[in-house]
Amino acid sequence: MNFSMIRFILSQVMRIEGVLMLLPCLVSLIYGDGEGIYYGIVAAFLILTGFIGCRFRPKNQTINVKEGYASTGLSWIVMSLFGCLPFCLSGEIESFTDAFFETVSGFTTTGASILSEVETLSHTALFWRSFTHWIGGMGVLVFLLALIPMSGGSNINLMKAESPGPSVGKLVPKIRYTAMILYVIYVIMTVIETVFLLIGGLDFFESICLAFGTAGTGGFAVRNDSFMSYGLYIRWVVGIFMFLFGVNFNAYYLIYLKQIKKAFSLEEVRVFFSVVALSTIIIFVKILPLYENAITALTDAFFQVTSVVSTTGYGSADFDLWPSTAKFVMCFLMFMGACAGSTGGGVKVSRFMIFFKSVTKEVQSYIHPKIVKKVTIDKKGVEPDVIRSTLVFLATYAAIFLLSMFIVSFDNYDMTTTFTSILATLNNIGPGLSKVGATCNYGFLSTLSKWTLTFDMLAGRLELFPILILFAPSLYKK
Amino acid sequence: MNFSMIRFILSQVMRIEGVLMLLPCLVSLIYGDGEGIYYGIVAAFLILTGFIGCRFRPKNQTINVKEGYASTGLSWIVMSLFGCLPFCLSGEIESFTDAFFETVSGFTTTGASILSEVETLSHTALFWRSFTHWIGGMGVLVFLLALIPMSGGSNINLMKAESPGPSVGKLVPKIRYTAMILYVIYVIMTVIETVFLLIGGLDFFESICLAFGTAGTGGFAVRNDSFMSYGLYIRWVVGIFMFLFGVNFNAYYLIYLKQIKKAFSLEEVRVFFSVVALSTIIIFVKILPLYENAITALTDAFFQVTSVVSTTGYGSADFDLWPSTAKFVMCFLMFMGACAGSTGGGVKVSRFMIFFKSVTKEVQSYIHPKIVKKVTIDKKGVEPDVIRSTLVFLATYAAIFLLSMFIVSFDNYDMTTTFTSILATLNNIGPGLSKVGATCNYGFLSTLSKWTLTFDMLAGRLELFPILILFAPSLYKK
Repeated sequence: MNFSMIRFILSQVMRIEGVLMLLPCLVSLIYGDGEGIYYGIVAAFLILTGFIGCRFRPKNQTINVKEGYASTGLSWIVMSLFGCLPFCLSGEIESFTDAFFETVSGFTTTGASILSEVETLSHTALFWRSFTHWIGGMGVLVFLLALIPMSGGSNINLMKAESPGPSVGKLVPKIRYTAMILYVIYVIMTVIETVFLLIGGLDFFESICLAFGTAGTGGFAVRNDSFMSYGLYIRWVVGIFMFLFGVNFNAYYLIYLKQIKKAFSLEEVRVFFSVVALSTIIIFVKILPLYENAITALTDAFFQVTSVVSTTGYGSADFDLWPSTAKFVMCFLMFMGACAGSTGGGVKVSRFMIFFKSVTKEVQSYIHPKIVKKVTIDKKGVEPDVIRSTLVFLATYAAIFLLSMFIVSFDNYDMTTTFTSILATLNNIGPGLSKVGATCNYGFLSTLSKWTLTFDMLAGRLELFPILILFAPSLYKK
Repeated sequence: MNFSMIRFILSQVMRIEGVLMLLPCLVSLIYGDGEGIYYGIVAAFLILTGFIGCRFRPKNQTINVKEGYASTGLSWIVMSLFGCLPFCLSGEIESFTDAFFETVSGFTTTGASILSEVETLSHTALFWRSFTHWIGGMGVLVFLLALIPMSGGSNINLMKAESPGPSVGKLVPKIRYTAMILYVIYVIMTVIETVFLLIGGLDFFESICLAFGTAGTGGFAVRNDSFMSYGLYIRWVVGIFMFLFGVNFNAYYLIYLKQIKKAFSLEEVRVFFSVVALSTIIIFVKILPLYENAITALTDAFFQVTSVVSTTGYGSADFDLWPSTAKFVMCFLMFMGACAGSTGGGVKVSRFMIFFKSVTKEVQSYIHPKIVKKVTIDKKGVEPDVIRSTLVFLATYAAIFLLSMFIVSFDNYDMTTTFTSILATLNNIGPGLSKVGATCNYGFLSTLSKWTLTFDMLAGRLELFPILILFAPSLYKK
């Protein structure tokens, strides 16, 4: 293990987090709520420590897969530990477990909250909550890669560990430029959404917080009832942007390159679009009887579908009250999640596609044993390695799911609560069903369950292995 | 496609079923309930048609994988269609959907019933219900292979399609002798259990029906309350035999060969034993507060664990009332199921092992990319083909599960009912939780749901592909 390189990366991450934490200080100054001091202290500590840690650049800058995973896993844990300190210091969240849960939920863009009231929080805390979504959405290591030139081709292993999807999509040969392009698209889209929300009559603070939550596909809202009190216009704007942030960013890069046709022919994007359309129709039909007019029903159907499939988790309606079929479709969308290469979580559309195509191929091979067919996506053959690791991903995912359910079941709540609490955290969505439904929160769970779900949020955001690897004893052997 | 060979196999199966159906006629004669006539009519028809169909032996007796699967799938559908006719003709079950559901539930050794009362059934019907479990447990095609010499090595494809597990376990090089040995073990164990039940004071009819249900890991009982009114002795006898029938039959063959040590060192058997022991302990601890004395609690814990893990589904307690953790463990056991090469259903212990070992290997390969490790079971390397098809099996299983949930959710029952109704049928267990719990039945579901679950029972028993292949259009092309 290249421990000095891991030290170097962690220090860089701390420095970046410190600088980013100055933003809530600014918010505090504007609103004069006096909370900025706590953010300032932590920021100062982070910048100082990070600065010292970065002083000595390691001679050997090679990062292999193992180190890429380990440093990504550790970065996110360190980030969350320091990120939750202001909540603890200011006393806005009393227990450390809760503060850590809330911060991990922020960075991992889950949006599951232990708070029953958010309107009583200071502007600074609300801003930081939403801002963690934005930081975590694209990833802090991707940010690091965009900022700092690193030697060798080995930084692909950092990108791989933090970017969602079965294989990393390099837009351009150089990782650094790929990371830059991604962040530029991310910033531009966030700005556009903010402008649309301002046009809708929201103030700047609310607009930017909601845009952060949408962009990172997070889900922390600034009102107690999430989205239930917003009008149709705001719901459609956010609904459309939740969809857009769930799309593979490759599509936007292709659009930028004026290869519009190619962008719209990306197989994953087409599947994603079809699933969203079909689900919206099914849910619309199923919930229509509950609504007075079709437009509101359609709005809620679309909003909730995009909210859940993009793993954002904003709630415009209490879908726990919907009919079984609608609830089931919601659960399925929670599993599937967004496109690879987007800011969304879940298992990812492309994994579902690889899985579905492998199965079809296998069945075909029973019927026509002599015809050798390859699994293809976008007309390119998928490497057998990617197929195998996709299947292993799904298997590991299931194992973590089961183990988490076992632990959370100690709390003795109903099966739906237990099941959807894991589903909603492991896939970084936020709200589940029953006792963790859209109008509820996670505050009532036991400490053990909260830590389990915190683990699930991290494992889900980093796609399992960067977190799991930290538990492998052989990692720490010389 | 070798259609004339499929015709030949189907005819053989019909002839065998016809002969087996003479047994309930005999029961009817003994008890004089007058129901035997309906079984006699169907038996006569089956024997006659089967006899005609078998007259012309196909010149080309080759059965490849595709034909093996297709003829197995078709055999089971034909068997169930004729098997349910006596229920319809006698009027003991009124609707065809219900009669077919009940018969498929019997042959697939599921034991899910649409009847709320079984004690009002005639002895003949009760016997046939239990006997279908026994026929389906080891499989009618395996029986066929044991009876009739077939040319070529291609009959392995029939065995493969009907025997549970990721790879077919040939005990001896000749398939025919393997099939014979399996049936001999099966018969001997059934007889031993019957004797033990007779010693426990049950009459011959009840003893043999319960033994049939245990041997096939079915679960149809002869009392309305399943096992709740039996004493401790009967519960332990049946509990132990449910465990034994869930063990890979290879172990018994090794014992017969006096290779006792080798039998006990089979990895799958050891894992199975450990899981049963651990689950019994966890559930015992969790349910102890609900019981007046520890012995009854332990008995119920052991009985329900073996009942569910072997996918039998006899109920000595209403586990729907147990704490969440106990319920979760039960659900996990339902998923896992018994050993490959046993009469039990579910995903199978060996698939779980292959899956778990592949995952561990994958994670290891991230840490030590240079060390190439093979997945091994019983110290032998598992073929990459078996690993791949195991993972694809799990994926297909999940897909069928999801699709079934979607359809059953139209009935608008709670998530637990919907979820466990699929779980209990696809894994051939019988009872689930909530509205399909141990004290309930499946009669209240809609016709659509019943057909979906019927499909799941067949798909589960035949391990998906022999049923799925029937839906592939390319199967019917020249």
